[in-house]
Amino acid sequence: MTDATPFLPAAYEHEIRVIWGDCDPARIAYTARIPWWALEAIDGWWEAHLGDAGWFHLNVDRNLGTPFVHMSIDFSAPITPRHRLICKVRPVRLGDSSIEFSVTGYQDGTLCFTGRFVNVFVIADAFKKLRVPEDIRAIVEPLMAPAQV
Amino acid sequence: MTDATPFLPAAYEHEIRVIWGDCDPARIAYTARIPWWALEAIDGWWEAHLGDAGWFHLNVDRNLGTPFVHMSIDFSAPITPRHRLICKVRPVRLGDSSIEFSVTGYQDGTLCFTGRFVNVFVIADAFKKLRVPEDIRAIVEPLMAPAQV
Amino acid sequence: MTDATPFLPAAYEHEIRVIWGDCDPARIAYTARIPWWALEAIDGWWEAHLGDAGWFHLNVDRNLGTPFVHMSIDFSAPITPRHRLICKVRPVRLGDSSIEFSVTGYQDGTLCFTGRFVNVFVIADAFKKLRVPEDIRAIVEPLMAPAQV
Amino acid sequence: MTDATPFLPAAYEHEIRVIWGDCDPARIAYTARIPWWALEAIDGWWEAHLGDAGWFHLNVDRNLGTPFVHMSIDFSAPITPRHRLICKVRPVRLGDSSIEFSVTGYQDGTLCFTGRFVNVFVIADAFKKLRVPEDIRAIVEPLMAPAQV
Repeated sequence: MTDATPFLPAAYEHEIRVIWGDCDPARIAYTARIPWWALEAIDGWWEAHLGDAGWFHLNVDRNLGTPFVHMSIDFSAPITPRHRLICKVRPVRLGDSSIEFSVTGYQDGTLCFTGRFVNVFVIADAFKKLRVPEDIRAIVEPLMAPAQV
Repeated sequence: MTDATPFLPAAYEHEIRVIWGDCDPARIAYTARIPWWALEAIDGWWEAHLGDAGWFHLNVDRNLGTPFVHMSIDFSAPITPRHRLICKVRPVRLGDSSIEFSVTGYQDGTLCFTGRFVNVFVIADAFKKLRVPEDIRAIVEPLMAPAQV
Repeated sequence: MTDATPFLPAAYEHEIRVIWGDCDPARIAYTARIPWWALEAIDGWWEAHLGDAGWFHLNVDRNLGTPFVHMSIDFSAPITPRHRLICKVRPVRLGDSSIEFSVTGYQDGTLCFTGRFVNVFVIADAFKKLRVPEDIRAIVEPLMAPAQV
Repeated sequence: MTDATPFLPAAYEHEIRVIWGDCDPARIAYTARIPWWALEAIDGWWEAHLGDAGWFHLNVDRNLGTPFVHMSIDFSAPITPRHRLICKVRPVRLGDSSIEFSVTGYQDGTLCFTGRFVNVFVIADAFKKLRVPEDIRAIVEPLMAPAQV
């Protein structure tokens, strides 16, 4: 009998310093900061795996853009400056010319949000759809988590 | 025979000035600005219908918070500084203690994004769920659009 | 005898909607939002006087950049969502290749901040200093306020 | 004979990850991001020296606010995502009820900006001026750099 549990590659973890200025008068992070951080975490994922300045590198050095076509976020606990916010990023789906990321945010072990983000690959200066480049496919595939994670 | 087409109340329209500083090096608005504007538009909806400073008024003067539990956005066209961004806001669902808004963004007649945003009502200083106050229910119900809009 | 009082050209007025999400837990606009608004007001000044999308137009259509070399701001009263913030923008100095703006912010008649901002003109894609273009000099000079304003 | 060279305490160093979304179409950080980062660095200075969540801690736990009365920044080199931005923070002046910070930003050893920021101490919920608390004076004084630094 084999263990059916799939091996789940470790997520990239991106740490956010939540500060006073991120909070609204309810003393919690203003909601609009949260997609901002999720995007910063995805950019950090690219930097971690491509070894350079994330989307800036892709666009400026490789003429490769990854505009967003979708985002959805469920918020489950308020975010405060009391703890760092740890954003775990995993690719969960790789299409012919798109990629989907899961980003989950934690503070002190509590799940604060769960999000899904879909990008398409484009030739940056033409804004035309592009097949996922092979070197990127080779990087992403071993890092993919099952979509339900 | 009567016309079965339901009367659709006019959406609240919130104008955003998109500027140079909102754009990334791809010369379009950075994605994380878009939920920010959608939230500003919802805040503007409250101001337009309650006659005071939106969420600030609700929280500070009425001890009423409306934290987000969900947002989802589909992006269909890039946003640039060439035109104002018109965000149309409509409530589409009112639960016992929650409200859902549709926000759609247009530039020069082109649909740029479609979003759904769900808030719950809470006693602000206790962060405890609350039934929708009657005066707010009375304001929202006549403004509701069918959920498929 | 003539009246020696110089005629002071009207400032450009830029209205900012201050909202809940701009405020920190002290219930006033977070300080870092204020230079953001001052810059937005200067961008609006360019749009008002050149008739197009401000810095975006200058950079993208004219290859003309105006990077900042200096800003200084004195803060005199807190800014809240209770009133619109009116930013008055005036050019106060025009050098060979630089321009200085005064931006003052008011809420309900109260002065909230006073700022000075210095830009240099550059060829955008070369980031090389440039003499103030003649058409811009012709627009700016009649709008200049004495530097002490 | 004594060495007249004053001992200069080490500055607090605050690292900023500059990303794609911080940049404008000129491919450099948008100017309004820079005061934001300088403030984040000052908040980090408080966290580093008080051992808790910076301004959030001061305000929420100690009812101590430090509103800004002045900022001035000279920009000397563009900031890009190619390198981390290192912000060095030092207190340079401590008055009866005010504190002044120097913040200098470097990328890859190049000075990008130099700023001065003045805060006053207030009772947070009363917004009334306050003498610098003794424990804070005791922390700040040994960290002070001569004002010309």
